[in-house]
Amino acid sequence: MDYVYGPGRNHLFVPGPVNIPEPVIRAMNRNNEDYRSPAIPALTKTLLEDVKKIFKTTSGTPFLIPTTGTGAWESALTNTLSPGDKIISFLIGQFSLLWIDQQQRLNFDVDVIESDWGQGANLDVLESKLAADSNHTIKAICIVHNETATGVTNNLSTVRKLLDEYHHPALVLVDGVSSICALDFRMDEWGVDVALTGSQKALSLPTGIGLVCASPKALEATKTAKSVRVFFDWNDYLKFYKLGTYWPYTPSIQLLYGLRAALDLIFEEGLDNVIARHTRLGKATRLAVEAWGLKNCTQKEEWFSDTVTAVVIPPNIDSSEIVRRAWKRYNLSLGLGLNKVAGKVFRIGHLGNLNELQLLGCLSGVEMVLKDVGYPVKLGSGVAAAAAFLQNNTPLIPSRI
Amino acid sequence: MDYVYGPGRNHLFVPGPVNIPEPVIRAMNRNNEDYRSPAIPALTKTLLEDVKKIFKTTSGTPFLIPTTGTGAWESALTNTLSPGDKIISFLIGQFSLLWIDQQQRLNFDVDVIESDWGQGANLDVLESKLAADSNHTIKAICIVHNETATGVTNNLSTVRKLLDEYHHPALVLVDGVSSICALDFRMDEWGVDVALTGSQKALSLPTGIGLVCASPKALEATKTAKSVRVFFDWNDYLKFYKLGTYWPYTPSIQLLYGLRAALDLIFEEGLDNVIARHTRLGKATRLAVEAWGLKNCTQKEEWFSDTVTAVVIPPNIDSSEIVRRAWKRYNLSLGLGLNKVAGKVFRIGHLGNLNELQLLGCLSGVEMVLKDVGYPVKLGSGVAAAAAFLQNNTPLIPSRI
Amino acid sequence: MDYVYGPGRNHLFVPGPVNIPEPVIRAMNRNNEDYRSPAIPALTKTLLEDVKKIFKTTSGTPFLIPTTGTGAWESALTNTLSPGDKIISFLIGQFSLLWIDQQQRLNFDVDVIESDWGQGANLDVLESKLAADSNHTIKAICIVHNETATGVTNNLSTVRKLLDEYHHPALVLVDGVSSICALDFRMDEWGVDVALTGSQKALSLPTGIGLVCASPKALEATKTAKSVRVFFDWNDYLKFYKLGTYWPYTPSIQLLYGLRAALDLIFEEGLDNVIARHTRLGKATRLAVEAWGLKNCTQKEEWFSDTVTAVVIPPNIDSSEIVRRAWKRYNLSLGLGLNKVAGKVFRIGHLGNLNELQLLGCLSGVEMVLKDVGYPVKLGSGVAAAAAFLQNNTPLIPSRI
Amino acid sequence: MDYVYGPGRNHLFVPGPVNIPEPVIRAMNRNNEDYRSPAIPALTKTLLEDVKKIFKTTSGTPFLIPTTGTGAWESALTNTLSPGDKIISFLIGQFSLLWIDQQQRLNFDVDVIESDWGQGANLDVLESKLAADSNHTIKAICIVHNETATGVTNNLSTVRKLLDEYHHPALVLVDGVSSICALDFRMDEWGVDVALTGSQKALSLPTGIGLVCASPKALEATKTAKSVRVFFDWNDYLKFYKLGTYWPYTPSIQLLYGLRAALDLIFEEGLDNVIARHTRLGKATRLAVEAWGLKNCTQKEEWFSDTVTAVVIPPNIDSSEIVRRAWKRYNLSLGLGLNKVAGKVFRIGHLGNLNELQLLGCLSGVEMVLKDVGYPVKLGSGVAAAAAFLQNNTPLIPSRI
Repeated sequence: MDYVYGPGRNHLFVPGPVNIPEPVIRAMNRNNEDYRSPAIPALTKTLLEDVKKIFKTTSGTPFLIPTTGTGAWESALTNTLSPGDKIISFLIGQFSLLWIDQQQRLNFDVDVIESDWGQGANLDVLESKLAADSNHTIKAICIVHNETATGVTNNLSTVRKLLDEYHHPALVLVDGVSSICALDFRMDEWGVDVALTGSQKALSLPTGIGLVCASPKALEATKTAKSVRVFFDWNDYLKFYKLGTYWPYTPSIQLLYGLRAALDLIFEEGLDNVIARHTRLGKATRLAVEAWGLKNCTQKEEWFSDTVTAVVIPPNIDSSEIVRRAWKRYNLSLGLGLNKVAGKVFRIGHLGNLNELQLLGCLSGVEMVLKDVGYPVKLGSGVAAAAAFLQNNTPLIPSRI
Repeated sequence: MDYVYGPGRNHLFVPGPVNIPEPVIRAMNRNNEDYRSPAIPALTKTLLEDVKKIFKTTSGTPFLIPTTGTGAWESALTNTLSPGDKIISFLIGQFSLLWIDQQQRLNFDVDVIESDWGQGANLDVLESKLAADSNHTIKAICIVHNETATGVTNNLSTVRKLLDEYHHPALVLVDGVSSICALDFRMDEWGVDVALTGSQKALSLPTGIGLVCASPKALEATKTAKSVRVFFDWNDYLKFYKLGTYWPYTPSIQLLYGLRAALDLIFEEGLDNVIARHTRLGKATRLAVEAWGLKNCTQKEEWFSDTVTAVVIPPNIDSSEIVRRAWKRYNLSLGLGLNKVAGKVFRIGHLGNLNELQLLGCLSGVEMVLKDVGYPVKLGSGVAAAAAFLQNNTPLIPSRI
Repeated sequence: MDYVYGPGRNHLFVPGPVNIPEPVIRAMNRNNEDYRSPAIPALTKTLLEDVKKIFKTTSGTPFLIPTTGTGAWESALTNTLSPGDKIISFLIGQFSLLWIDQQQRLNFDVDVIESDWGQGANLDVLESKLAADSNHTIKAICIVHNETATGVTNNLSTVRKLLDEYHHPALVLVDGVSSICALDFRMDEWGVDVALTGSQKALSLPTGIGLVCASPKALEATKTAKSVRVFFDWNDYLKFYKLGTYWPYTPSIQLLYGLRAALDLIFEEGLDNVIARHTRLGKATRLAVEAWGLKNCTQKEEWFSDTVTAVVIPPNIDSSEIVRRAWKRYNLSLGLGLNKVAGKVFRIGHLGNLNELQLLGCLSGVEMVLKDVGYPVKLGSGVAAAAAFLQNNTPLIPSRI
Repeated sequence: MDYVYGPGRNHLFVPGPVNIPEPVIRAMNRNNEDYRSPAIPALTKTLLEDVKKIFKTTSGTPFLIPTTGTGAWESALTNTLSPGDKIISFLIGQFSLLWIDQQQRLNFDVDVIESDWGQGANLDVLESKLAADSNHTIKAICIVHNETATGVTNNLSTVRKLLDEYHHPALVLVDGVSSICALDFRMDEWGVDVALTGSQKALSLPTGIGLVCASPKALEATKTAKSVRVFFDWNDYLKFYKLGTYWPYTPSIQLLYGLRAALDLIFEEGLDNVIARHTRLGKATRLAVEAWGLKNCTQKEEWFSDTVTAVVIPPNIDSSEIVRRAWKRYNLSLGLGLNKVAGKVFRIGHLGNLNELQLLGCLSGVEMVLKDVGYPVKLGSGVAAAAAFLQNNTPLIPSRI
């Protein structure tokens, strides 16, 4: 394996996969088990119950699908919709683009509302489309809560408000891949019908579980949804839920125990404290970017993301060189700019199981790399700005008071 | 987590997921990494190259899909076929049944050739159908190499011989879930077009990678295959293969390193030695069953499976009670009888990273359970029969000579 | 590293180091920590409290010394005795021999009571010596509870009875290395003054903690004991116990968490159930040896050991060849014969976290090796005899009822 | 276990035990093994050979003793000296003090040369004592290479020069606990007779191996050394070295494999690069301390330590509060001031497997804590000073160029 070893810890600041906490690595350090013994269903039962809490739902039905975020997308769409169905989808960055590509390849009639990369979903256009759709031809609204490519957070409560205002029955399908467990997400309150995330994001696990949660309305929609689906079919799961054996096919034993540990850590910290920590680290990152004299790819404060910050660099510098050099010299992993913003931005992921000093270490590394590539940053400036905020706002670790 | 702890090792003899060797558990004991750094593509390149060896192909193209065997099935079908395509499928047990169910739900025109559970695929019927199909309406033959529910191994070289005899161009899609890396499987020699397995079977990894390998003819078929597919689309992989970044979406870092370790162990032992070990353990198991005065579910020797043995028990005993008791009293995990043979057979999985004494420990446990449930077995009889064979046929461990 | 890899699990049946259960391996899978933070003392406090339970003492003071059993011996002796002190020591096998060697090198006046290897401590001679010692010149009785080289268990309650009868104040120092946590050991009831074991024995941890427990009388003895000691000095520990920081020098963080997990497993099973399991496995092993027509090195039933069985083989066979071959062909690790019994016995360790089927797997392996080396064993005979007993006497696993 | 969990990584900056790199944690994640099988001696042989490289000796004989640094001290002294022997020892901080305490308790005639805490060994006094000792009554010079309590590095080459000048045959015993593998240490060139370290220091392993290396002259000295020793006796090791089985008593299997991995990482980076990295991180730390307007406990540049920096804080602040708060609020583990400097200094350990961004994260944390406790630090100032140096002096990671 070339290119691997570097002294000390890797500083992992891509927006996924993220750092796995040691207790979770430990929990997954195990042999396989018979998933048909009484042990695995007993474990699964607690997981399904507790996973609902991170979606903030009591009425939803969760599915832990052995897949990635891309598979979770497909599961959300094919279980609730039929080919030809008209859906609205917002194109605001690479991941919403990929989801739209999937929607089109699954043969939905996708009405794309596009924004500049760096802007949020254009909800004014949504409103006008809802207003015009008195026949309710729009079957679903597909929206990413947080666009990982640009660091833009969309306003989901407004989406709900608009649908309510126009008494529109469209389903709301939300990609919460880089938001759930990190940003404030409220499935029931916001009337989200399908929400999804991947285990390797804010849950801080390895890749391998697509977590999908369906509202009662979404479950109802499966009865008429004609999209072809087998592996991703929720009904196969529901059948086994009823039997109490839970699994239509073999789950990863290791990830189930890992998820148990991950949820335990989140509940020990408190989900609201977890979210507050993300708010804090997001704010600190943005203060550093500002101190460096650089621009956030996100164009307005209302869309600022607390899980990923895309930093725009001057045109004379190639952001890929920043990412490359960070890894080669400082063992720091940053996110590349993707597609339209390739070479123009680099990304700092600040989600998952992460603390203040890890972030400040990352920021100090970014400063050194910026200087390496010729950007005239004042070393220490971003760290100082972030630390000034963090020193005022970081609570004592509750379990250590 | 209820029902879990028992002193000593769990004796894991379900036919998957199977025991993970310690070096593989170790290799997976790690934090996440940026899969876009140079390290992961460098690793992936070696995996794709080496995975071909376990399929015994030089011309095939492998895909390491983050999914289970069920997903691998779907990938094989949707990438090569169009809805309405006529395919032949053999129903010989629960897993071929489930695959057929998937084929039907994916809207293929499935011509099912059914056998008694305990028999192999009826290749005489296949021959007559091929003979009658001078128009080549049959687009594919779907066959499990080894039916995990009954312990039946099908003869794939005969399938190839028949197709050649009738100059029939149908694709051959093979479920090798409980065969590849354990039984003699020859993708190129037998003209298999798509072969697949799951990481949790003979590769002795956790669940999470569906390994699929496509012949050049199968890749060609993707160009006309109209089945809807996104997550499972090989073309998304091929695009990233060309870029040298390999991954259309996030793989499990842990499973990649685990697969590297698993392949290293297989090559260190020698793939042919691995297969010979399975032959040896399969034979030993059947000798024990015979000594117990019980019948193998598999009706003829030509179909005996070297990876799983389904043992038929007398009608007055419920085989589920055997499985339950084995786990509750002896920390022994056996496979249940499924569907048609539920309650009638229990299964001993003897695949993956396993040795002679592990198997003999299992057989001694089965004997005690049989006695527990009232079957008049002579304790030690099966172990003696198996040991007599093993003591004559087990080679020295090559690395220890 | 040459000579290492073999397919499947290593069957570890040396009488130490023994198999580590997976939950304990998991618990130790961690980074270092500051041992002066509040966390480690809090953990240590629970360990010291709970360790007393496995010694069956309420009045004893435990020490968790970063050393091996040999170091624990030295700690027991140097903290309680002065050079020139007369002590009685029983020579019954290699480990009592090594302890006596240590006693002599530490300049005690050792009165050795020797028995044939295969016999227990000669307590008649002890009685006559106590009877003759009305001046109480004997300062201590040193005795192994279980001689690991020959599989002989000494009767400690008789030792206590004799001392009481003669109102003799000698200290009783017990090597419980291959007994504590496996055999019935009662520190308080038997008036043991220092008892000790090593983490890699029945506690089923890696090597690295010498667990020593001192009675109030032993602690009192430290005040006059003139043996030179620094690293092994209990007073350095007691000083830090008072401070509540516990450690005079750096402990292994990993072993502390491992010990916590090991104790948790023992208490979950129940210490008495753990001991009963050892009784059961010991008996089963002896039944197998008998069925093979071989002799136990232990000459009388009263000394039979439930943690290790030394099997005498016919003079025409070299027992080292059995051990070598077991490892090379069956991945089975057996214990060599040591010193006087080198080449004449091999040993089966059956202590620690082990269950019935593991033992039966081992016994089947021993049978095959015996046949390999030309001993005319009937394959299956020992397994049958052991299984007949185990099938009648193994309880359901409590947590799975 | 109270007080443990905090989100994100623990920032471990005590001067031992230090961070264990992931490949080493992985290597130790294993079951026990029979240490008398051929595998462990084969492994041990490579370790003994390679360990000599980190001592920079070709003529020395290494011992891997299952103990801590305190035990390694005792081993060095008792194997080479006799009670009553006159030895010179330098008292410059808490760890040299503890070693002197041990020397006195082992009944040597210790001539203590004391310096202020913060100064190095007074070699002028040594010179005068050597000059006066024409009878060679001084049997050994005991010196710490690096005093961990104050961050002072002594000049060992001058010690050698003085001994040579005066043709003095005294043995040189060096505590290299916080130096070897981190600072430039040259056993052969400097004529060191016994050098020692602990696994939990710059080798970045768990506690548990005391690594001791003896010169031929030291081995010769064992023949006349009358100090009582058994557990720590090198001769027991030498006997087993000759047999090729290496171990007089059970080693930790896990630590042996861990040591193998640790050495592999060190050689992959290059020992000289490892030392250069420590030089770099040490310098960066001192620049930060200066920028904060604080004093280094070490009084002169010639003694500056590249493995630990003790920072003096103003008298109105209690340094223990800094350590407590760092842990409670920022998950940062710093070293306490010990004994004479308790409350007056806190310590930053910067040794072992560590990189630039980890250190900068730590420094940013120290800044925040300083502000927390009322010291008027300018946030970012220390990080800026350190980063300015590091950005100029950090090489690319060799394996990633």
